[in-house]
Amino acid sequence: MNRIAFGIEYDGTDFLGWQSQPQQPTLQDTVTAALRFVANEQVSLVCAGRTDTGVHARCQVVHVDTVAERTSRAWVLGANSRLPPSVCVRWAQPVDDAFHARFSAQSRAYRYRIINRPVRLALEARFATWERLPLDVAAMQTACAALIGLHDFSSFRTSACQARSPVRRISVLDWQRAGEEVTLRIEGNGFLHHMVRNIVGSALKVGRGESGINWIAEVLALADRNRAGPTAPSEGLLFEGPRYPAEFGLPAESTLP
Amino acid sequence: MNRIAFGIEYDGTDFLGWQSQPQQPTLQDTVTAALRFVANEQVSLVCAGRTDTGVHARCQVVHVDTVAERTSRAWVLGANSRLPPSVCVRWAQPVDDAFHARFSAQSRAYRYRIINRPVRLALEARFATWERLPLDVAAMQTACAALIGLHDFSSFRTSACQARSPVRRISVLDWQRAGEEVTLRIEGNGFLHHMVRNIVGSALKVGRGESGINWIAEVLALADRNRAGPTAPSEGLLFEGPRYPAEFGLPAESTLP
Repeated sequence: MNRIAFGIEYDGTDFLGWQSQPQQPTLQDTVTAALRFVANEQVSLVCAGRTDTGVHARCQVVHVDTVAERTSRAWVLGANSRLPPSVCVRWAQPVDDAFHARFSAQSRAYRYRIINRPVRLALEARFATWERLPLDVAAMQTACAALIGLHDFSSFRTSACQARSPVRRISVLDWQRAGEEVTLRIEGNGFLHHMVRNIVGSALKVGRGESGINWIAEVLALADRNRAGPTAPSEGLLFEGPRYPAEFGLPAESTLP
Repeated sequence: MNRIAFGIEYDGTDFLGWQSQPQQPTLQDTVTAALRFVANEQVSLVCAGRTDTGVHARCQVVHVDTVAERTSRAWVLGANSRLPPSVCVRWAQPVDDAFHARFSAQSRAYRYRIINRPVRLALEARFATWERLPLDVAAMQTACAALIGLHDFSSFRTSACQARSPVRRISVLDWQRAGEEVTLRIEGNGFLHHMVRNIVGSALKVGRGESGINWIAEVLALADRNRAGPTAPSEGLLFEGPRYPAEFGLPAESTLP
């Protein structure tokens, strides 16, 4: 049996999220069909982090176990010939049996893009969220600093979240403005269902001046989903990818320094 | 009569270019219909720079003459309510009769994005061009430096180009790499039909090592379209916008310092 890891990139606009389900298209079923074609046998995918409907990924990582013997080049070219234009395999790499796309990931990085201006979007509409009211990005950063570190994030998980523990560690949380573009970079050991989008929706309330800069710390302490802001839209969210210990020998973009 | 200028943004993927023609959709006809709705009379658009099929714009500028009296807010909100999601009016502004969207523009800026990597694109496919072979960006910059200044650009115009003179002045021509992304910023007093894409197609030949760093200077001197490289694809090209003298009082992004 060979265990193979793959880096997968996608524009999630036209997909109903990662997870396989009866309604189509899903990314899991789309990628599974392409890899099955190359393997010439059924394959079962394990991914680093499920993404929701409309969410994009720069480098989702999956692994499969297969008896097929293929070069990395054959995996990549073969799969890409079967994938739709909005999905591609960036790389394929044989990995040790100890590697697991989900459990070996030590951190996961996301980016959330907002275009902050009076008029609605056209050019950026697929990959950014529109915020009409002026945002105070310094206030958003100050308010969100309370989330950095190890916390119970119950206030920022959706009621449908199936994770056993609501405790996660956020290592990076950085809001930046460049002209009309406001971007969040966030990295942590893991994220609960809707956690990034609920953090963004709450930060937007602070940025618009509807809530004070201590409000996010208060919401966090209450551990109650009903207290946080609304879930921000999916189109602004990009899963940059998971990061693994260097010993697994994955490409640099997926490897911790 | 009131002369009104508009800043227009679009994702050009699904349009057959700016210019009105029998085949649809075109941007000119789409924007004209929206402004006619707000004006409640026929309007005729003059644009700063026509874009080809599939080319995008951050801030195309147009002007119209109309007897309609509307606030800038009414123009923007009214037009955006009638435009498809891939097009929007960024701003509307009354201007002096001496202002002309095409003839008053002192410079025009474009950006061309290339993703340089072995595998085809997914996430960036709408807004960047894929180049599979490794590009030597320093060589591209050195080769293209010959184009800066006032020159006869006959070698880089399409045979269909209707401009009377092939002489243009390029003031900025800057290739940069950031990871797998290679970007050209180019600004000049005007560009011939296909000129930016023909410069990119020629620079790619140098970047791939198929032509030497003096080749673009040689092609320029020959003033013969048959000598230059092929026209690079449309999806990587973005019209950043025209720039006007400050006296016209347009928004900062369209105003020369």
